[in-house]
Amino acid sequence: MIHVALLGFGVVGSGTAEVLTQNQSIIEKKVGQAVNIKYILDLRDFPDSPFADRVVHDFQIIANDPEVSVVAEMLGGSHPAYEFTVACLKAGKSVVTSNKEVVANFGTELLALAREHGVSYLFEASVGGGIPIIRPLREDLASNNVTAISGILNGTTNYILTRMDTEGASFEDVLKDAQKLGYAEANPAADVEGLDAARKIVILAAMAFGKRIDPNTILCEGITGITAADSELAGEMGYAIKLIGYTTRVDGKILAMVSPRLVPLGNPIHGVNGVFNGILVTADMVGQVMFYGPGAGKLPTASAVAGDLIDVMGHTPAGIHSPVWVDATLDEIADPDTYVCRHLVVLDAHESDVGYLETVFGGLNAVHYTEGRFSFITEEMTEAAVKACIEAVDYPLVTRIRVL
Amino acid sequence: MIHVALLGFGVVGSGTAEVLTQNQSIIEKKVGQAVNIKYILDLRDFPDSPFADRVVHDFQIIANDPEVSVVAEMLGGSHPAYEFTVACLKAGKSVVTSNKEVVANFGTELLALAREHGVSYLFEASVGGGIPIIRPLREDLASNNVTAISGILNGTTNYILTRMDTEGASFEDVLKDAQKLGYAEANPAADVEGLDAARKIVILAAMAFGKRIDPNTILCEGITGITAADSELAGEMGYAIKLIGYTTRVDGKILAMVSPRLVPLGNPIHGVNGVFNGILVTADMVGQVMFYGPGAGKLPTASAVAGDLIDVMGHTPAGIHSPVWVDATLDEIADPDTYVCRHLVVLDAHESDVGYLETVFGGLNAVHYTEGRFSFITEEMTEAAVKACIEAVDYPLVTRIRVL
Repeated sequence: MIHVALLGFGVVGSGTAEVLTQNQSIIEKKVGQAVNIKYILDLRDFPDSPFADRVVHDFQIIANDPEVSVVAEMLGGSHPAYEFTVACLKAGKSVVTSNKEVVANFGTELLALAREHGVSYLFEASVGGGIPIIRPLREDLASNNVTAISGILNGTTNYILTRMDTEGASFEDVLKDAQKLGYAEANPAADVEGLDAARKIVILAAMAFGKRIDPNTILCEGITGITAADSELAGEMGYAIKLIGYTTRVDGKILAMVSPRLVPLGNPIHGVNGVFNGILVTADMVGQVMFYGPGAGKLPTASAVAGDLIDVMGHTPAGIHSPVWVDATLDEIADPDTYVCRHLVVLDAHESDVGYLETVFGGLNAVHYTEGRFSFITEEMTEAAVKACIEAVDYPLVTRIRVL
Repeated sequence: MIHVALLGFGVVGSGTAEVLTQNQSIIEKKVGQAVNIKYILDLRDFPDSPFADRVVHDFQIIANDPEVSVVAEMLGGSHPAYEFTVACLKAGKSVVTSNKEVVANFGTELLALAREHGVSYLFEASVGGGIPIIRPLREDLASNNVTAISGILNGTTNYILTRMDTEGASFEDVLKDAQKLGYAEANPAADVEGLDAARKIVILAAMAFGKRIDPNTILCEGITGITAADSELAGEMGYAIKLIGYTTRVDGKILAMVSPRLVPLGNPIHGVNGVFNGILVTADMVGQVMFYGPGAGKLPTASAVAGDLIDVMGHTPAGIHSPVWVDATLDEIADPDTYVCRHLVVLDAHESDVGYLETVFGGLNAVHYTEGRFSFITEEMTEAAVKACIEAVDYPLVTRIRVL
């Protein structure tokens, strides 16, 4: 029998207990032995839960119990999740987690610690909820050089953008509604300002390139500045505005960024709507593959945590390919100003300014003029160049959105 | 150093040699040691190939070389691929394959043989080309009960149907064009009659339910009967016609089938066009996840073969969860007549027959009448029931297409 401890009995923690119980027979068949949830660590008591008798409040009980060989960390937040993870790995217990904050901030160190102690640190649930993405990157696509990943990685913002797109509603109105419906938190900052997506793209970049970048240092723009007019304009031009986590290499250096992007109709993630996530991986041998599904939620996320648990419980530690990450040095990280793409630029300019704008930007596409909004899509140019052009023309900037 | 043999130097075989060579450094880093392609088995010589010196014509050289621990079988067709696979597994060599015919026909036996000899038999490339699907089903979704899989599993037919849809062209015309362009073979039967998709859905059903069904016995309808008029009608109703491999359980029994289906606009695989494949997995914990990408082609398929090779080369055999299949007994296989769905029915009837048809079918949706084609979508009903109704009304049947 294998004894498991769950850290955290919130949404994902209780979901994981549910998955392990409800699908016990198929799970034990795959693991090859009985699986017992021995402890559930939480500050609260759950007297009405069928798991009430497993709830403990003192982490040391778990850390000190040699019978517990596998721990699922679903506490959320960096602390004490990080410290508990370190303690478990040092005690020779494998850890699986849904905690993107810990993986993005401390993944390099925790993976090294796991290696050092002959155990595993797995985090399929930290990106894309229930969508298989970490293991496919690590195993299925292992023969590839990944060239880029673009992902809709946050369901809350995608829900908001989808409704803005279909209803022509304002960001503020849809956000309020999303909060009422439970799709957005009371404090939505981590979602709408892009930090949640930033953590996830940092994890994907590290899976693709083996180098972790500090998620707090990457270019990160949220969706609070997107207006109903932007959304309508994008639609007319054949695009949808999505919050995209994006990573690629620029001259060998790693770029990771989060920003709203115009996604063209032909892109497989164009149609990823509502709370769903979609992750498009471009790699040298396979071309493009896309992974789509529920990027959050109790049972979908628990499905991924339980998948990692089965992997750990069914294998010897040597049987698992843990990725090796190193922290990227400053000279391995691309300056976002060097990144090249096309840009939607909307200026407070007049139709008659087209000639001048063309001279400065060197080519305008999909030119559009409505009531003081002069909009166009540039040729491919660097961030630095487009910013210099905007400054040069001296018309008030209404908005600039990168094209994917 | 690990010594690998490739069986077959056709499209996938030469692609696999290319992947292993071009991405040698990242592959060897993941495997943890040098990888050498020691032999390539083919009937032909390839004097101009950089691999010319590895080509052998006698399989026994490979079978009898104890240095070769891993073999990639990419011969296509059942024989001698099956016999060679048996010989390799018995000789203690792990085998990875892209050969869906062998996996669908002999997978149960070959997986058992691999287990018996302490080696692995992996076949990620056998379904969906470069798309990760077999390993995600086996590992990422391991905590789920899969309830259904619906997949666009054949790029040739999807290319034909997409062009019929967008251009209003006939099946025959597009097929000819596809043959010219190399998207369809000179003898397109295995593709257009559905057998290729049947083999793949049998493999997916076995991954989902642990039971293999003989691919030659499942309900299998191709796309040769689909007309431009059907395609246009479907489009007007908000559907796209796709050749769908489908598997689910009906009253605990396993159903696997291939047929054209009307895929509604909201379904994630509705937008899977051209030569691409898309596989939608529905499972109790995760809900729905979709895998999308190139379902065939030299390097995409080789990417999957090489991913399996890395898995085998980087692990001890005990480190790999090989699935356990058994052959489904007759009473474990659902009678297709018991399968329930909605059906598009097109009859050679008159507009004024609507009342009578309504009486017989018990509810008509999306009724449509044009020049002797009376079309409607039924309520959910069994195959047996819809067939009985069509027979009862005695109007000539123009077409019947199941709704997904």
